[in-house]
Amino acid sequence: MSAADRRLVPLYRAMEAANLDAAAFVPGPNFRQLLGRDFHLMERPLVVIVPATGAPVAVVPNLEMASFETLGFSGEVFDWRDDVGPADAFAAAGQAMHGLGRGARFGLEAQRMRVFELMALQAVFPDADFVDAHAAISSIRLHKDADEIACLRAAIGTSEAALEATLRQVRVGMTETEVGVMLVRELFSNGAESLAFDPIVAAGDNSAQPHAMARADYRIRPGGALLLDFGASHSGYNADITRTVFVAEVSETDRAFYDTVKAANATGRAAIRPGRTAHDVDDAVQSLLEASPFAAFRRHKTGHGLGLDVHEAPQIMRGDATVLDAGMVFTVEPGLYRPGEIGVRIEDDVAVTTDGIDCLTAFPRDLRIVGAP
Amino acid sequence: MSAADRRLVPLYRAMEAANLDAAAFVPGPNFRQLLGRDFHLMERPLVVIVPATGAPVAVVPNLEMASFETLGFSGEVFDWRDDVGPADAFAAAGQAMHGLGRGARFGLEAQRMRVFELMALQAVFPDADFVDAHAAISSIRLHKDADEIACLRAAIGTSEAALEATLRQVRVGMTETEVGVMLVRELFSNGAESLAFDPIVAAGDNSAQPHAMARADYRIRPGGALLLDFGASHSGYNADITRTVFVAEVSETDRAFYDTVKAANATGRAAIRPGRTAHDVDDAVQSLLEASPFAAFRRHKTGHGLGLDVHEAPQIMRGDATVLDAGMVFTVEPGLYRPGEIGVRIEDDVAVTTDGIDCLTAFPRDLRIVGAP
Repeated sequence: MSAADRRLVPLYRAMEAANLDAAAFVPGPNFRQLLGRDFHLMERPLVVIVPATGAPVAVVPNLEMASFETLGFSGEVFDWRDDVGPADAFAAAGQAMHGLGRGARFGLEAQRMRVFELMALQAVFPDADFVDAHAAISSIRLHKDADEIACLRAAIGTSEAALEATLRQVRVGMTETEVGVMLVRELFSNGAESLAFDPIVAAGDNSAQPHAMARADYRIRPGGALLLDFGASHSGYNADITRTVFVAEVSETDRAFYDTVKAANATGRAAIRPGRTAHDVDDAVQSLLEASPFAAFRRHKTGHGLGLDVHEAPQIMRGDATVLDAGMVFTVEPGLYRPGEIGVRIEDDVAVTTDGIDCLTAFPRDLRIVGAP
Repeated sequence: MSAADRRLVPLYRAMEAANLDAAAFVPGPNFRQLLGRDFHLMERPLVVIVPATGAPVAVVPNLEMASFETLGFSGEVFDWRDDVGPADAFAAAGQAMHGLGRGARFGLEAQRMRVFELMALQAVFPDADFVDAHAAISSIRLHKDADEIACLRAAIGTSEAALEATLRQVRVGMTETEVGVMLVRELFSNGAESLAFDPIVAAGDNSAQPHAMARADYRIRPGGALLLDFGASHSGYNADITRTVFVAEVSETDRAFYDTVKAANATGRAAIRPGRTAHDVDDAVQSLLEASPFAAFRRHKTGHGLGLDVHEAPQIMRGDATVLDAGMVFTVEPGLYRPGEIGVRIEDDVAVTTDGIDCLTAFPRDLRIVGAP
């Protein structure tokens, strides 16, 4: 068995557990985990198809062949050129697999694969039953080993250093986009290889939108909140951190609002240990928020898994029965959002250990005032 | 008709031309063009459904509602919370639309929408015929107006300034990742709001991989090529520029290789005028490359459209009958790749005008030696 074949073993296990006759994956976190490096996901389909029995096949744009050949992929590869299009390559790949029988369960990364890649597969395997196997396929990345956690720590270290450097430079009158550019520059100055995602920098009323877009025409004002949600990545592993600070001063109402989120964050982290469920952690957080004077301002679950993808399993939310286990890494990010006025979110990244948690983020959570004259 | 309704008019026209009974779009370039701002595409589905007759509807994650409400969307909105999931909201949206009849043609952005969003729609509209309408829907962005071209110019200006600043700092012995970080820092220092995509920085043999990943352990050497493919974005509009330079010195063979690509780039730009087709431009470029001593090292088409998306229509390739028209913007980026040795690509961004082209990129194309001692 070649090196590439051994790398597919976790996928075969996941396919067996999900009763799949075949699975397909495209560039992205699972691709990187399975084959060792990633490709850009663009207008040219690149799909790896793995039948439960028989050799895997791949459909690869010709211009990616030199890169693809470095993977040591053991299956047959069907490349296609821009002027011909991918249909013939998909058809040849299907023939090499001898097709799939009627009702064969064909699992897809449904949150990653795009509709045109599915349509290309449907044309070749008209009798297969395509199913959403995103969770099953992505389960190969659920447990992080020590090397992976070291990469996450490196990404987080960079992110926290950049945050500290940025907060020291914030002044009343700056725009959200100015603070955002400062943060990005500090991320790269502090060792980021790339950004986990475009940072969210939201001040004043904009902080009440959980996924706000920075404004170039709003200048930060005394008494307003300033929320920064961002992360560096290191060797493909992503940090995801949020801190909310106040500009120059803070009202007593906003302080109480902040302290409620801070307490929810602490409660969430304290609720984590192996054997408990994702539900348990979110329930502890939501129960605290529901019992507070700010219950009406809850908008989202407690957190999400973190690794090669910024949002992956486990989802830390009520109703999710995933049993927490050593090596799982996820965010704890309770938030409260009072529309038109203020939002506060405090987000940490934690790894479950054999007897509790290792909180990978260390940036202080005490209420901080920045940009005071 | 509200402001939001007026914004949908181009989509209605595209739907009529493509004979669609309904269309759906998700966050991304078309969403931004139609509704004025974008959202992050993550694990929570956010889908706008537009029937040919009747009011549009939207399925929106509850935590995005405060942001969504700023759009002035005129249709009915069905929000869903993390602990309930989106299925009920999709069902309610389908009921509000009174469903779709058997065989109704439902067009999707198949290169953008993911499989799980399609599956959510299929559950609600089991009798509809879902079709790939990516080109039809995206046609609303095919022609850029003066404001859009001004945004592209701003993104390109930033990118060219960053490239010049980076090339002045390149030295023998630096790694590809070091040059990449330098380039990103210069992009943000020179006014980038975000990156169009993760830059490609490829030296030596790595330049022969059109979409190479930067290596942290390869130090650039005298005589090697150094290829930089990158872009800033401004107000959502993306630059996409490639230049290939040589480190310290260049062999006569590599100079001939470079000059062939340079001639192909000039030929491509000269072939563009309104009334010609995308095929004509690629054919001029490919014919020149085919007639050169390096014909075997061609790997890809001449270019792609550029705007709110980095890769969009028109595709500049043989067989594409798109008639070029004033306001279309695309790349001209011929390349040659000799595996294991060298790759050269020279990429410009051009706008078609009423009588020719406006080349938006101005960075010199003459062979340049950097990092000489």
